[in-house]
Amino acid sequence: MKLYETLAAEIESQIANGVLLDGEKIPSVRQTSQHHNLSITTVLRAYVLLESRGVIESRPQSGYFVRPRAQRSSPPAPARAAAPLVLSSEVDVSRLVLKTLRSISKDGAVPLGSPYADPSRYPWKRLSQYASTIARRHQEWSVMNDLPPGDPQLIRQIARRHLENGLAVDPGEIIVTVGATEAINLCLQAVARPGDTIAVESPTYYAMLHAIERLGMRAVEVRTDPTEGIDVNALAAVIADQKIAACMVMPNFQNPLGFQMSDERKRALVELLAGHDIPVIENDVYHELYYGDSHPTSLKTYDTRGLVLHCASFSKSLTAAYRIGWCLPGRYTADVEKLKFLNTLATSALPQMAIAEYLQNDGYDAHLRKMRKAFAQQARIMAAAVLRFFPDGTRVSEPKGGYVLWVELPGRVNAMALYARALEEGITVGPGNMFSARGSFDHFIRLNYSHAWNAQIEGAVKRLGRLVAELAAAEN
Amino acid sequence: MKLYETLAAEIESQIANGVLLDGEKIPSVRQTSQHHNLSITTVLRAYVLLESRGVIESRPQSGYFVRPRAQRSSPPAPARAAAPLVLSSEVDVSRLVLKTLRSISKDGAVPLGSPYADPSRYPWKRLSQYASTIARRHQEWSVMNDLPPGDPQLIRQIARRHLENGLAVDPGEIIVTVGATEAINLCLQAVARPGDTIAVESPTYYAMLHAIERLGMRAVEVRTDPTEGIDVNALAAVIADQKIAACMVMPNFQNPLGFQMSDERKRALVELLAGHDIPVIENDVYHELYYGDSHPTSLKTYDTRGLVLHCASFSKSLTAAYRIGWCLPGRYTADVEKLKFLNTLATSALPQMAIAEYLQNDGYDAHLRKMRKAFAQQARIMAAAVLRFFPDGTRVSEPKGGYVLWVELPGRVNAMALYARALEEGITVGPGNMFSARGSFDHFIRLNYSHAWNAQIEGAVKRLGRLVAELAAAEN
Repeated sequence: MKLYETLAAEIESQIANGVLLDGEKIPSVRQTSQHHNLSITTVLRAYVLLESRGVIESRPQSGYFVRPRAQRSSPPAPARAAAPLVLSSEVDVSRLVLKTLRSISKDGAVPLGSPYADPSRYPWKRLSQYASTIARRHQEWSVMNDLPPGDPQLIRQIARRHLENGLAVDPGEIIVTVGATEAINLCLQAVARPGDTIAVESPTYYAMLHAIERLGMRAVEVRTDPTEGIDVNALAAVIADQKIAACMVMPNFQNPLGFQMSDERKRALVELLAGHDIPVIENDVYHELYYGDSHPTSLKTYDTRGLVLHCASFSKSLTAAYRIGWCLPGRYTADVEKLKFLNTLATSALPQMAIAEYLQNDGYDAHLRKMRKAFAQQARIMAAAVLRFFPDGTRVSEPKGGYVLWVELPGRVNAMALYARALEEGITVGPGNMFSARGSFDHFIRLNYSHAWNAQIEGAVKRLGRLVAELAAAEN
Repeated sequence: MKLYETLAAEIESQIANGVLLDGEKIPSVRQTSQHHNLSITTVLRAYVLLESRGVIESRPQSGYFVRPRAQRSSPPAPARAAAPLVLSSEVDVSRLVLKTLRSISKDGAVPLGSPYADPSRYPWKRLSQYASTIARRHQEWSVMNDLPPGDPQLIRQIARRHLENGLAVDPGEIIVTVGATEAINLCLQAVARPGDTIAVESPTYYAMLHAIERLGMRAVEVRTDPTEGIDVNALAAVIADQKIAACMVMPNFQNPLGFQMSDERKRALVELLAGHDIPVIENDVYHELYYGDSHPTSLKTYDTRGLVLHCASFSKSLTAAYRIGWCLPGRYTADVEKLKFLNTLATSALPQMAIAEYLQNDGYDAHLRKMRKAFAQQARIMAAAVLRFFPDGTRVSEPKGGYVLWVELPGRVNAMALYARALEEGITVGPGNMFSARGSFDHFIRLNYSHAWNAQIEGAVKRLGRLVAELAAAEN
């Protein structure tokens, strides 16, 4: 048992014995560190572990408290209730993400840890007008008309948009989903089964790891170049070594690395997989947010055998709140359509129709140009601020699109420790270990730069830099 | 190999050999029956089997055609693509249901086979007004505010409604979902794992069988009295005999039987399961559509240990198109909330808010009274029409709520054969074998009586009666 696990067990038994009472504040990280003669990082890891188990909770700017018993989750539940949702034995990633988002929305924490773009970037006024008009116009809706694949007008608009972006698709292949999240879940279910192994990038977007884990599959992480993308030779070696049921990648503006795979590498990847008859799920949600001169190609561009399952959504480019995504599942279209029907029956029609009307009648291109320009600029500002305020040895990515920066902390400062300290000060970050099923990248963080640069954000980056320095000093 | 399987294999090889070409009409059921000297039912079963495999397709009032090769699903796909979505080896139920619904919405087939209520029953004008006003009012939405558990105003209204119906619930237990379909899937995932066995009623609602099958679990069907509900002693025997991970039931106005379990039986069921620490998923989507004097109790009413996961929705009582359901997962609340986040991230906020405003400000009770009265009356009309037009020996259920009638065909006429013949004449029915993982109930059909009685419906019931007589005669 590691030091922090021992400490966590000790605190947990104090709570069980009534030494620490429901709702009571537990000793601060600094006090416990001095009292037990342990490093700050070790104490923080113990607290984060207890929090992930639902035993204690942190309150911004107040410290850690014993979680009231009634609020603790499923305590002595039967064994089967403990389905393995936990990414590593250490941290429950989905609880961590939900907690981060709640700190932002409820307590006003600085949203550097958010996966979502600043919603003030989106053309709400026009979208809302369309939604309002459509609601008023429709005096009757039948769910029968909304069954998979989805609203016909929206499907036409998605096909048209793909064509404008250089990809001719068969509208009959498009299935509308509740965001790309549902699309990815359904596509994975269509191509692989419990026990199968899925090849992913390293680091990889945590929602893809969750999908793999939730379906009882196993992720194998393939070497991925931070600026070029997944290493096709390394993937070939993995395929030679073990049975791979499917591959999942983000070829454009990968979350968290921000790279764009070259056309040659995309083609090589698709050809390698086609040669082994392995389907590939392409998560292309950031495709409209490129900083370069032209829209990137997708893996689908090079697919001749129906093995690419392309997933995308309007959640990054137009609105996340409407929950509209889609997929082009190639030869698995009939299966994915059926799975959609079984998972949620249908996608609510009103948001689909509002987006369809916006795409048909409004300035989507002008809106996107504005957003791309702003994000490209803020990528540079955020990178410069991190390099200025963080200690020497910090390294940052160079995103080619999207709105997140990947930061390597100096001196292997622990990202979960930084996460916990930052949250105490009302600042959120995305800890790097969320992006690996093996808990790699524990000295990396992801920062969201979609919000217009202002004094609060600059102050938060500055404060983060000081916390990194403190944690580095405490370790040494 | 059975006769119809041999015939199906023969036709399939004719298609493979090019004897029958893409898009070509294949010989009619009657022709094939005469030519091969086989019964009408055998030929129909062969055609239905080929259709479920995607090899041929039926077109209303035209007959069966070879499905163009390009439209056939995943032909020589890798083995893993053939995930076991098929309920029995004979019929792909979800494809059958989707096909039925499309025949209704696209070809105007008579919707006796629909699982949905006539949408003209719903208060669209008011709902649409609220949706329109909310869309206009909201100049910005953040998905961050829509994360699970769901819209706070809607959650308050759901809690209030439960209270009015006699059940005090903790609003903190309510999780909003994309219809009850998502709620059932998430609850099942929270309490059981692949390989587990789930006890269900017999017959049971097919969407629950799909959820079990899709998650790699196994259904065991428990003797169920057509008017009293699941046999608690039989369930106790099943539990004594094998490990049961969870139980799934519809205690009120069960689909397809229409019974309402007595309070005593509900209590006995909950106590039996609690004694073995077995969670029970309660599908209570029809709870507002009772024909009696008062709202029925639910299993949740008798739950003292957090083992009842209650699932419901507005899809039967207010609108199916908005796709809003919810669940009260008891001690599994934290797990279900997390699974909701992983499955679809959030439920679209606009439909949630429109329903919340309707519940708060409008005449939900008056609307429901009207709907209950109409359905109770139409239950009697439909039952009388079936008994009048179907051959002697036909038996019908006595629904206590909801809007479906369960019909036992005389002389063991095959329901799939009737389904296929009826569809040729533009009439849909719900074949009984969909309601069993073992293919039981193959001489039952489910009829939807939510639409106002009219000459078209009466004509359809009459025509169905004649088809049943023909099929019975052809068998003998």
